[in-house]
Amino acid sequence: MFDQSTICAIATSPGIGAIAVIRLSGEMAFKIADSVFLSPSGKKKLEKMSTNTIHFGRIYDGDKLIDEVVVSIFRAPHSFTGENIVEISCHGSTFIQQKILEILIKNGARMALPGEFTQRAFLNGKMDLSQAEAVADVIASSNAAAHKLAINQMRGGFSREINDLRAQLLHFTAMIELELDFAEEEVEFANRTELRKLTERIERLLRKLKNSFQLGNAIKNGIPVAIIGDTNVGKSTLLNALLNDDKAIVSDIHGTTRDVIEDVVNIHGTAFRFFDTAGIRETKDHIENLGIERSYNKLNLATVVLLVVDMQNPYPIVKQRIDKIRKRISGDQKLIIVANKIDSGLHETIQQMEITEINDNEKLIFIAAKKKQNLEDLIEMMIQSVNIDAVNQEDVIVTNARHYEILKNAHEAIVRVLNGLDSEISGDFLSQDIRECLHYLAEITGEISNNEVLGHIFKNFCIGK
Amino acid sequence: MFDQSTICAIATSPGIGAIAVIRLSGEMAFKIADSVFLSPSGKKKLEKMSTNTIHFGRIYDGDKLIDEVVVSIFRAPHSFTGENIVEISCHGSTFIQQKILEILIKNGARMALPGEFTQRAFLNGKMDLSQAEAVADVIASSNAAAHKLAINQMRGGFSREINDLRAQLLHFTAMIELELDFAEEEVEFANRTELRKLTERIERLLRKLKNSFQLGNAIKNGIPVAIIGDTNVGKSTLLNALLNDDKAIVSDIHGTTRDVIEDVVNIHGTAFRFFDTAGIRETKDHIENLGIERSYNKLNLATVVLLVVDMQNPYPIVKQRIDKIRKRISGDQKLIIVANKIDSGLHETIQQMEITEINDNEKLIFIAAKKKQNLEDLIEMMIQSVNIDAVNQEDVIVTNARHYEILKNAHEAIVRVLNGLDSEISGDFLSQDIRECLHYLAEITGEISNNEVLGHIFKNFCIGK
Repeated sequence: MFDQSTICAIATSPGIGAIAVIRLSGEMAFKIADSVFLSPSGKKKLEKMSTNTIHFGRIYDGDKLIDEVVVSIFRAPHSFTGENIVEISCHGSTFIQQKILEILIKNGARMALPGEFTQRAFLNGKMDLSQAEAVADVIASSNAAAHKLAINQMRGGFSREINDLRAQLLHFTAMIELELDFAEEEVEFANRTELRKLTERIERLLRKLKNSFQLGNAIKNGIPVAIIGDTNVGKSTLLNALLNDDKAIVSDIHGTTRDVIEDVVNIHGTAFRFFDTAGIRETKDHIENLGIERSYNKLNLATVVLLVVDMQNPYPIVKQRIDKIRKRISGDQKLIIVANKIDSGLHETIQQMEITEINDNEKLIFIAAKKKQNLEDLIEMMIQSVNIDAVNQEDVIVTNARHYEILKNAHEAIVRVLNGLDSEISGDFLSQDIRECLHYLAEITGEISNNEVLGHIFKNFCIGK
Repeated sequence: MFDQSTICAIATSPGIGAIAVIRLSGEMAFKIADSVFLSPSGKKKLEKMSTNTIHFGRIYDGDKLIDEVVVSIFRAPHSFTGENIVEISCHGSTFIQQKILEILIKNGARMALPGEFTQRAFLNGKMDLSQAEAVADVIASSNAAAHKLAINQMRGGFSREINDLRAQLLHFTAMIELELDFAEEEVEFANRTELRKLTERIERLLRKLKNSFQLGNAIKNGIPVAIIGDTNVGKSTLLNALLNDDKAIVSDIHGTTRDVIEDVVNIHGTAFRFFDTAGIRETKDHIENLGIERSYNKLNLATVVLLVVDMQNPYPIVKQRIDKIRKRISGDQKLIIVANKIDSGLHETIQQMEITEINDNEKLIFIAAKKKQNLEDLIEMMIQSVNIDAVNQEDVIVTNARHYEILKNAHEAIVRVLNGLDSEISGDFLSQDIRECLHYLAEITGEISNNEVLGHIFKNFCIGK
């Protein structure tokens, strides 16, 4: 069993607000609250109150009045954690918040660890592990798409999919293991053709889930967009137009793998992460070419590449540049060719661009970045090119790196099963690989877990959740 | 009557937290909440629920799930504002907070103005004006002393004092006005000797309240401390030792009347506001002397002056410096002579300092700032020298500039009454001054108020309170 002490923390955003909420969870929550809380009559005991009720009163530190508060009572198991919970809604002064925490701790509570409330909800069976993880994502979600994925996962959408897979695999392995019990009689309970179909379906599902991670991660952290092009084609103007627009919320974040500062912008409810690929240009300098090679490598991190070309240049130069970049774009990436400066471009270049050939994973748009002409269409194109609409359906999208790693392992195991079926290996080997796959899937929902994994998951939560 | 629309705002600190609370107040609060809230059964209507109850459910934007929430119900008049209130406790994502506000507004609520919830509490008679003002002070209180004053005022301590004064004055004026009714008969219902005693008592009370503002304001905004002394005596070392101490919370604030940046530090629950008086030194340069004069003027803003002198200097030099500063210190100010560098000072200087004469409003302490020697004693001395203990009694201390202005006017009026009694002016003139005093006092508690005054008071609140 886990630590049963009663924990407390400030649950609302740190800082000054009209009100703040302090959460207290555990067996002793009511007792501890009663030792610092006084109702107007002085007689009401929170311990005797029904669940889901609200009580006005005062918090005292000894005989010193700290605040007038409103207290909410949740009785186990009808609470977020499944334990007794008291939520103290106090005035939002930082002094009062700290003071109340201090008094609760003095009276027997201890400060909650990051994510400890959610961890207890998981340990008390109020939610599975992937749902608990989604709580953190819901809180961190800063745009409509990320919010939708997180809410869907919190409601168990992802768990349902995983549990369906597990049920199918369990049936599968049961059949095979039944064969093993009757090994000497050489019966086949599991029809190999049927098994193959089922395995293939499961492989497809696992692959789909695994592959959804790139999109899921992009939605959660912002779709990586690279703006490239020669100097003076209007890259900065375009970036600024996209960033400085009133509808955009700009924030600077430090890339995790690079020291480059990236701009994350919310546009129409979708987060885009613009990153710097400055320096991609023609040069004969060997050292500089090494730097340019690094820039090209960064290009590979982008889901969407905006190649800006200047309509003031002759068509052959423009075409050459496009062809050069095409070679660097992988099949997974979307290339948007942004024909800029149409307001002052060469008539002939524009004409030829209009009939230029466009590949499947490419799009072409004509804009005038300085005049903000056609910018809305470009944004629409960016949103469409990452197929963000997929999120609007009930599709399950993987957003969590831990889940992705597990799904990769589960997928490898199921591929081994498929290969085993091909080479007609014996049932016990098949069964071993299926069991491995089952094991991995159980790790996602937390049916199999250990303290180290839990510790790792919840340490990234904020305190108070 | 005031605007009856239903208002909403985020009540918790802006930013990401585990949870956030959105408050909805007004006649339509339940109806609006019901139009976006769905209970697990889908059948529960918040409008039908009892006051002070809590309900789990989901917030929808049309058919789009926004969040799983916990909703608290307060029925008029049993709520903070005296109106129907719904508090929605949602996940603390900024996206979700904004989205829920947006949905509430779409369904008929409007965004609350700063302080509008508290203003409604005042207009609905849930608290008087000085209590409403104290709500803002409670929220802003960042140290124990300021918190105590604000809580005391919110509980009505200040209002009680004012109401007592008014009751006495009303009795007084009633007597005099009765005389006026029987003017032709030349009776004196109000014994002039008794009246004089009463007026003197009221004048003392008003003066006391008025004078408490300096302390109250210091406690609320930090006690102004000036550290002065010649260059190289260790002013910066001392300031840094006071600021960088682990127990100190340092914040930079811009002075309201100057462009100087000040440091506000919480030490043992008392806020000190250190301000820059650099530049006070000997010079013959006329222009520079003008600058020094300005620094001296700033010195007058300090409640506590720390004069740092260097024990490495000969005693006569030290003495001369002390005498020079003494002339600049007013009777209201506390001068703490900080004899620094005792670890490396001249034996003779230290000996003579130990027997040097100290005035009533002065204190002397020996320290070694670099080694943090005796710093705790210095802090204790600073706290004592502002008589902060006054706050620990049930004394009423004025902290609000509006109240101070009104008390000044009320005091002037009562002084006129006193003078009138001295010169034996007629009852109708006396009555006029008393009525004026009564009028001012009513302005404090808000019995007399107008929209302009209210607007001015509440516009400084945060939104959501």
